[in-house]
Amino acid sequence: MKATAKAHTNIALIKYWGKRNEGIILPTNSSLSLTLDGFYTTTSVQFSEEYTNDQFMLNDKPVADEQFKRVSSFLDLIRQKAGKSLYAAVESTNEVPTAAGFASSASGFAALAAAGTKALGLDLSDKELSALTRQGSGSACRSIYGGFAEWQMGTEENGTDSYAVPIAPAEHWDLRVAAVVLSSTMKKVSSRAGMKRTVETSPFYQGWLDSIPADMKQIKEGINERDFEKVGEVAEANCLKMHATTLGANPPFTYWHDTTMTVMQAVRDLREKGVPAYFTIDAGPNVKVLYLPENEEVIEKTLRTIPGVADIRLSRPGQGVTYL
Amino acid sequence: MKATAKAHTNIALIKYWGKRNEGIILPTNSSLSLTLDGFYTTTSVQFSEEYTNDQFMLNDKPVADEQFKRVSSFLDLIRQKAGKSLYAAVESTNEVPTAAGFASSASGFAALAAAGTKALGLDLSDKELSALTRQGSGSACRSIYGGFAEWQMGTEENGTDSYAVPIAPAEHWDLRVAAVVLSSTMKKVSSRAGMKRTVETSPFYQGWLDSIPADMKQIKEGINERDFEKVGEVAEANCLKMHATTLGANPPFTYWHDTTMTVMQAVRDLREKGVPAYFTIDAGPNVKVLYLPENEEVIEKTLRTIPGVADIRLSRPGQGVTYL
Repeated sequence: MKATAKAHTNIALIKYWGKRNEGIILPTNSSLSLTLDGFYTTTSVQFSEEYTNDQFMLNDKPVADEQFKRVSSFLDLIRQKAGKSLYAAVESTNEVPTAAGFASSASGFAALAAAGTKALGLDLSDKELSALTRQGSGSACRSIYGGFAEWQMGTEENGTDSYAVPIAPAEHWDLRVAAVVLSSTMKKVSSRAGMKRTVETSPFYQGWLDSIPADMKQIKEGINERDFEKVGEVAEANCLKMHATTLGANPPFTYWHDTTMTVMQAVRDLREKGVPAYFTIDAGPNVKVLYLPENEEVIEKTLRTIPGVADIRLSRPGQGVTYL
Repeated sequence: MKATAKAHTNIALIKYWGKRNEGIILPTNSSLSLTLDGFYTTTSVQFSEEYTNDQFMLNDKPVADEQFKRVSSFLDLIRQKAGKSLYAAVESTNEVPTAAGFASSASGFAALAAAGTKALGLDLSDKELSALTRQGSGSACRSIYGGFAEWQMGTEENGTDSYAVPIAPAEHWDLRVAAVVLSSTMKKVSSRAGMKRTVETSPFYQGWLDSIPADMKQIKEGINERDFEKVGEVAEANCLKMHATTLGANPPFTYWHDTTMTVMQAVRDLREKGVPAYFTIDAGPNVKVLYLPENEEVIEKTLRTIPGVADIRLSRPGQGVTYL
């Protein structure tokens, strides 16, 4: 009753931005991501009749409070699915620097779902595993797969058709991502709260939803054709739309800092100089820059010289969940 | 057949952002502004049978090309209204520093309309003068009045009901504006082109329009009650919505620079420290900060210390068109 799994985080190129059901995490729009080789979580789950409660160690430290509750509640879903009521000891190692602005919950819940279900002897399909993972952390459902994955929002109220599907494996295309870590990464509105406020109050929310199908169609074509300009343009535009919706919320807010703007401008300037590069930004101030291998040197060098940038972390397309 | 008029520029608190008719400049939404004492244009117009063409001197220099054409075309409207076909010599002095990011076209066309119609003996009501001015530069139609003015979008196709009306005179409320001039004020998309692209391509444009009536109602209440927080909140939110629409345009664009973000954040920080202040931003990178007289010192001092800020220009509510 023990299993270990490794999962990578992912960066959304078409953003997940809004829930239609907060309880079981059903999104208001489909999203698409690239799983990243550089950032991952390894998690062991051991169920035992001897345990009298759940335990969660993250990077060798016991975790309590909200983070523990989220993990324990997710274990409940696995126990329910397996028809067993055993407590578990969870040990996770996170290779996702929080400061880089990647959601460690994506790799975290994907690894937890994989290890937990395997430990209890459940034999889930990828889609079933993805739908389960979704209930721990929405974007985590895409990390089941390597390379490019689409989280199809689905239409069912019970969420059985809301899961990720593979679009193209990591080997399909060596599209790279530079995570630009800013010196100041403070954010005042959490992703969860920001999403909720935007859905409830932004006059732009319907426009965001209306624009998703065309973006999704274009980016899939671009991925299929390995057309960097096509993929980059739609990813950058999609990210700008997501962030625009927050400016219309009541009260309005933004995840951008001044250095966020500087990095965006630097990426536009690179393009004007003939270096293909595009940016995307999640619910935080850090910027991720999409580029091709042949431009890695100039991309890294350019981004490192920007005042207010603390670090650059490069990554390639990564694999889906693996069992160790 | 000579007259001289002075008009001040204005800062929109509810933005004019989109045309439904580009020829005679009819807007897609009503807007509201504060006329500013500090920035103005003085214009003399002399019609004469001896002239063989129009002439336009701006700050003692002859103007040609597009700027001249716009003035000459506007003189055509005045000539048409008066049933006369005389050429004119126009002399303007601009006390609106271009770098401050105020539309000198607002004070410019208001002064030109006032002086030009008076020179030809036309006796227009304020509404008629405003509707005429509108056809030279949309936002100029609000500069006919001092203090707070609303440009009512109207519904007629011929534009006869699209003009500004006075909301409260300058003496009603000493609401002040600090124009924060950035060191780098380059913009790649003109206001006119940005507005057009947004109307035609942004999925957020309908949301923008839908949100105007509530903003307008709230700001008028706030002005009436001299409620600074109410006016500031709606002005800031309205500006953020306007700028959000550009992020959804195809291709997306923004008028913001990194220092624009820094100034916005500084204003939010002032509020957190208990100093009431709000920002608004037109179609450019400069920021205008709204404040009350008792906070002038701390506002100016705070804004001056921001790296990337070249100058601060303070202004009080100004008067409408006057004849000299």
